[in-house]
Amino acid sequence: MFNDKDHSFMHAAMEEARLAATRDEVPIGAVLVKDGEIITRNGNRTIELNDPTAHAEILCIREACALEASQRIPEFDLYVTLEPCTMCAGAMAFARIKRLIIGASDPKGGGVLHGAKFFDQPTCHHKINVEHGLMTNQCSQILKEFFQNKRK
Amino acid sequence: MFNDKDHSFMHAAMEEARLAATRDEVPIGAVLVKDGEIITRNGNRTIELNDPTAHAEILCIREACALEASQRIPEFDLYVTLEPCTMCAGAMAFARIKRLIIGASDPKGGGVLHGAKFFDQPTCHHKINVEHGLMTNQCSQILKEFFQNKRK
Repeated sequence: MFNDKDHSFMHAAMEEARLAATRDEVPIGAVLVKDGEIITRNGNRTIELNDPTAHAEILCIREACALEASQRIPEFDLYVTLEPCTMCAGAMAFARIKRLIIGASDPKGGGVLHGAKFFDQPTCHHKINVEHGLMTNQCSQILKEFFQNKRK
Repeated sequence: MFNDKDHSFMHAAMEEARLAATRDEVPIGAVLVKDGEIITRNGNRTIELNDPTAHAEILCIREACALEASQRIPEFDLYVTLEPCTMCAGAMAFARIKRLIIGASDPKGGGVLHGAKFFDQPTCHHKINVEHGLMTNQCSQILKEFFQNKRK
């Protein structure tokens, strides 16, 4: 289902997640890929930027849209270490992302496979091709370790 | 249910919606209020900013969070001319908005009263006090006129 390129892109997203942890942000990372190349990459920065919308996915989308000078980037695939929340799922649909590849799932806060299941709603006007289960254990391990250290 | 202050705040949101129309953006406006005063106000700017997340509500939230130097603004009430989408509903929950006052409802794209009904989901961790039906006709009229003119 997933090829070497997919693994290398998720690896990059995991690097962004680990960098977020060093900034004491919830360690989630994302990359946006076009024509087989990473165009934007980021991790959560909600604390650093005092911005509740500064999730990894939204930061990647906003930067890619700025680069493309468009609010729609239909040639981009998004790789993210954790199932996106409802806010980010909405942003992806508005941006017309082509393909969404998810590492770990998020039963507590996810909005794609859980909860709002936004892409399944009649109010979602761009259904995104979702693939999940890429490097799930490694992706969730980053979060587990972060919260274990927090509790110490 | 709604008092004079509520009406004046929705009036300001409607002004922002009309300004958005002059920029050829979908005419939706919002204001964020704290202690009875408008702190931030904006309309949609997704085209102008090449940013699919630049909805009126998110622009108001990001600006207010920057002013408050926090990703959470629990003392703020948000007035918006149209029922927020799922993306904006998610942003409001993350920002810990206190009260959401909606003008017109949006069966096609709304994420509060329709579709994802985000605040009713177990994956929403901050239920917002939602009031709707304030100046509904005037709020929807702005949108109707905009799209009627588009079709001409």
